Amino acid sequence: MLKFHHMQRLAQVSVRPVQVGPVTFGGAAFVVIAGPCAIESAGQFSRIAAAVKAAGAAMLRGGIYKLRTDPHSFEGLGEAGLAKARAVRDEVGMPFVAEVTDPRQIPVLGEVVDMFQVGTRNMFNYSLLKELGRTDKPVLLKRGFAARLEEWALAAEHVMKEGNSRVVLCERGIRTFETATRNTPDLAGALWIQKRLRLPVLLDPSHGTGRRELVIPLALAAAAAGLDGLLVEVHAEPARALSDGAQSLDFAGFAALMARLRPVLAAVSRPLHARR
Amino acid sequence: MLKFHHMQRLAQVSVRPVQVGPVTFGGAAFVVIAGPCAIESAGQFSRIAAAVKAAGAAMLRGGIYKLRTDPHSFEGLGEAGLAKARAVRDEVGMPFVAEVTDPRQIPVLGEVVDMFQVGTRNMFNYSLLKELGRTDKPVLLKRGFAARLEEWALAAEHVMKEGNSRVVLCERGIRTFETATRNTPDLAGALWIQKRLRLPVLLDPSHGTGRRELVIPLALAAAAAGLDGLLVEVHAEPARALSDGAQSLDFAGFAALMARLRPVLAAVSRPLHARR
Amino acid sequence: MLKFHHMQRLAQVSVRPVQVGPVTFGGAAFVVIAGPCAIESAGQFSRIAAAVKAAGAAMLRGGIYKLRTDPHSFEGLGEAGLAKARAVRDEVGMPFVAEVTDPRQIPVLGEVVDMFQVGTRNMFNYSLLKELGRTDKPVLLKRGFAARLEEWALAAEHVMKEGNSRVVLCERGIRTFETATRNTPDLAGALWIQKRLRLPVLLDPSHGTGRRELVIPLALAAAAAGLDGLLVEVHAEPARALSDGAQSLDFAGFAALMARLRPVLAAVSRPLHARR
Amino acid sequence: MLKFHHMQRLAQVSVRPVQVGPVTFGGAAFVVIAGPCAIESAGQFSRIAAAVKAAGAAMLRGGIYKLRTDPHSFEGLGEAGLAKARAVRDEVGMPFVAEVTDPRQIPVLGEVVDMFQVGTRNMFNYSLLKELGRTDKPVLLKRGFAARLEEWALAAEHVMKEGNSRVVLCERGIRTFETATRNTPDLAGALWIQKRLRLPVLLDPSHGTGRRELVIPLALAAAAAGLDGLLVEVHAEPARALSDGAQSLDFAGFAALMARLRPVLAAVSRPLHARR
Repeated sequence: MLKFHHMQRLAQVSVRPVQVGPVTFGGAAFVVIAGPCAIESAGQFSRIAAAVKAAGAAMLRGGIYKLRTDPHSFEGLGEAGLAKARAVRDEVGMPFVAEVTDPRQIPVLGEVVDMFQVGTRNMFNYSLLKELGRTDKPVLLKRGFAARLEEWALAAEHVMKEGNSRVVLCERGIRTFETATRNTPDLAGALWIQKRLRLPVLLDPSHGTGRRELVIPLALAAAAAGLDGLLVEVHAEPARALSDGAQSLDFAGFAALMARLRPVLAAVSRPLHARR
Repeated sequence: MLKFHHMQRLAQVSVRPVQVGPVTFGGAAFVVIAGPCAIESAGQFSRIAAAVKAAGAAMLRGGIYKLRTDPHSFEGLGEAGLAKARAVRDEVGMPFVAEVTDPRQIPVLGEVVDMFQVGTRNMFNYSLLKELGRTDKPVLLKRGFAARLEEWALAAEHVMKEGNSRVVLCERGIRTFETATRNTPDLAGALWIQKRLRLPVLLDPSHGTGRRELVIPLALAAAAAGLDGLLVEVHAEPARALSDGAQSLDFAGFAALMARLRPVLAAVSRPLHARR
Repeated sequence: MLKFHHMQRLAQVSVRPVQVGPVTFGGAAFVVIAGPCAIESAGQFSRIAAAVKAAGAAMLRGGIYKLRTDPHSFEGLGEAGLAKARAVRDEVGMPFVAEVTDPRQIPVLGEVVDMFQVGTRNMFNYSLLKELGRTDKPVLLKRGFAARLEEWALAAEHVMKEGNSRVVLCERGIRTFETATRNTPDLAGALWIQKRLRLPVLLDPSHGTGRRELVIPLALAAAAAGLDGLLVEVHAEPARALSDGAQSLDFAGFAALMARLRPVLAAVSRPLHARR
Repeated sequence: MLKFHHMQRLAQVSVRPVQVGPVTFGGAAFVVIAGPCAIESAGQFSRIAAAVKAAGAAMLRGGIYKLRTDPHSFEGLGEAGLAKARAVRDEVGMPFVAEVTDPRQIPVLGEVVDMFQVGTRNMFNYSLLKELGRTDKPVLLKRGFAARLEEWALAAEHVMKEGNSRVVLCERGIRTFETATRNTPDLAGALWIQKRLRLPVLLDPSHGTGRRELVIPLALAAAAAGLDGLLVEVHAEPARALSDGAQSLDFAGFAALMARLRPVLAAVSRPLHARR
């Protein structure tokens, strides 16, 4: 009885689903997006895509244009990566999301992705947000690492005001005084904005913690708490990744994540999103 | 197979259990401590104690000496609360923890509590920590709201160096730039210190979020992520509480928390600590 | 003797000057840039320009493209402001700096400004920084409000790596847990980066504090501490400003700032930059 | 005229002076307190006291009971330091301030100090603050390194409510995401609370920055901005100091600070406090 009463209250927090091809964000099912930080080659991306698909991911991620703090580090394949990404996406038959870092990339990148990702460094780039609001593709809007929840909500409004209401949010950790973890994943904040905006909200436990051994526990926490999915970095050989190796899961790690996720989702009466 | 492999790795993170009367922190079972922010009267405390016991809490909390930012607000019953607390503790037969705010309270408070709590404002009060290190009672050491994990670990060392190794840690949210929530509960940090110090770590989702509607989701997240228990504020009538009403659960809310906690704990193969 | 010894050590912190028309940043003289947050009309801008020139400012600022957190607030005149800005700049004969918020604005805005400003929200917009690195105009690079000093230094490197070494830095306050002030101006950080990069560093006491009554004290502090100049918001009628009114000085306030700045600069043996 | 108008407005921010022996905090004169982080021996303290007196300090500091994050590091001489401190204080004839870290130290420490210092880790130790409010000695209340200004104001209220209104505040840097400096000195916050509480406010540029080369610039900034004085760490041989060596000035450095302070104070029409 009690339980029912509280589930009703929870039900009031239902979000408006966002459809990306066959994948529904914010519906009954929990959605896992996985893939490498950056696409390094067609072979690397293809192997990872096959592995995450086999383990149960619903959607594919992979960086083509990378923003790197250090101007001398690997910045993604750029235009050379577009065709490779497209080929792998078609090969595995999963919808694909990649980050857009400049409004001028929208036409070409739009040929390849099913969803545009706005990274943490661009959440305040209103010029880019507006332009994405004029496209017909959904937007995965990551929280700025120092953005207040109110500002994150207004960034979503910058997109939606232009006519594109298909926005999915992604908490990826905030910057605090703590340095033992790369960022501080803000689950409470993610739940706050999910309730307030009624938009689907994912967690990125890879950037959120920056430490491989914390990725699975935080992923389980997000599922138990009621978020709508995950964005996870996976690499065939994390130790050799050109970026973000320390926080990427290998294939066994990702399979373990999915195996441990299922019972937790069952405990909160939520299925894992199945590929169709 | 995979699952087994990863559970083995997790098992390496096993903590050294701390015994408080019949309650084991950091053992196989997950421990819930509940009670009011402050003991307001014998009757108020007795009703709450009975309710949290009935719903499945393993241990009782209740403030006697309160540190309040505003010097004009309710500061607890102080010495007048000691006998009331003792009577209710004996009546319900549950171990009891209360905060100590001055080294001179140790002898009298020690007559009443089974465990001393060090609050967030005193985590850096090394004078108090050392003195607690010379007692024979376990210590519940909350994280300073702006303490780095390294500093929290060294605060535990201040207690243990004096000879008292029975320390249980409690993450209660850190102070960040975000203001929509009272604090930012740092699950990743709690897991980091659990692994490093091998001490039991609890989450206080009440102070951690400061918002009643976020208490249950964060409690479930802590259970799924692998923390060792919870410290929860419960009040018969939160709207009339003399302190922390906005973040206290009422009896129905606490019963709902416990009902929803059980399946999540089962999903991670961990029982709820039963009263003996 | 002692004094001389320490001045020698200070002298080692000398920066590489950056020339903007007749104005030298990072030379012997202290440079004050002043003007409105946003250009609202030709008349408004013209009056303000005349006033700040009369009071001793060396350079003019004024926003044309504004990034606003709230998408429903005033976003600057945009293209309609370009000709107005140009006319006032020529009328008063002072070099002019305005913010660029999109790489596609560079050609048109470059016709009007003597220096491009990168605002705090775009410090991590490496796509924009690189493009500015390929122009022949100096860049005023504000610190991201949550950027570590190391990241600010690397942002400057993103510009300089492309061939444009004329970068002037501007500290504008960082985001902390404190909310009584809009931001926390980080003088120590500004001095740290000045010494490390040997680039000129200014303080923006208007955004830095968000409170008019703190603008003058922080401006004097910057001068005494050894920074290279100021970026100050001035408005004829701050109470009626379309943006940032609460932190803008009126004409009398700006004249008072300049009057009080001169003796402090004299005390540290540094002249105020004179217009030629 | 203008200048007069603005000085009048500033004059409204006049604080209520606090007298400590012959020294007036918050009066017309700027007060410099100097001395070692910790008293290491009678000889060490005596040499430093003589040096800072010769250079123009008005008051002496020196730690007897030290709170150290690492329980295995030097924690001050404790009771063994009391007589040594007293002897040096009488020898140089300057008022003396030292930190109190436990309410039980008040009677014995009160025999030695002219002013009790509450360190940053104890700003929230209301038990200690109240007890200090019942003494007849002035209190130097440092800001908690993560305390909001409102909380700092209420901490002062905890002391004053008990009857002791002689409170002097000291900003010592706040904890932020920045790690290049040990703390972020918050000049704007110090000015905000000075205006609001009308209590004298000092800056501790040593802890504020944690880097010797930033101590003098921040000290000059505090003087130009209108704060009431400084608390500075000085050591005969910083490289050999048992604590805080990296941020301590040597004798030549302190003499340079005083030499450079005088013209800046003159520029803001404020004398340096002279010893009588």
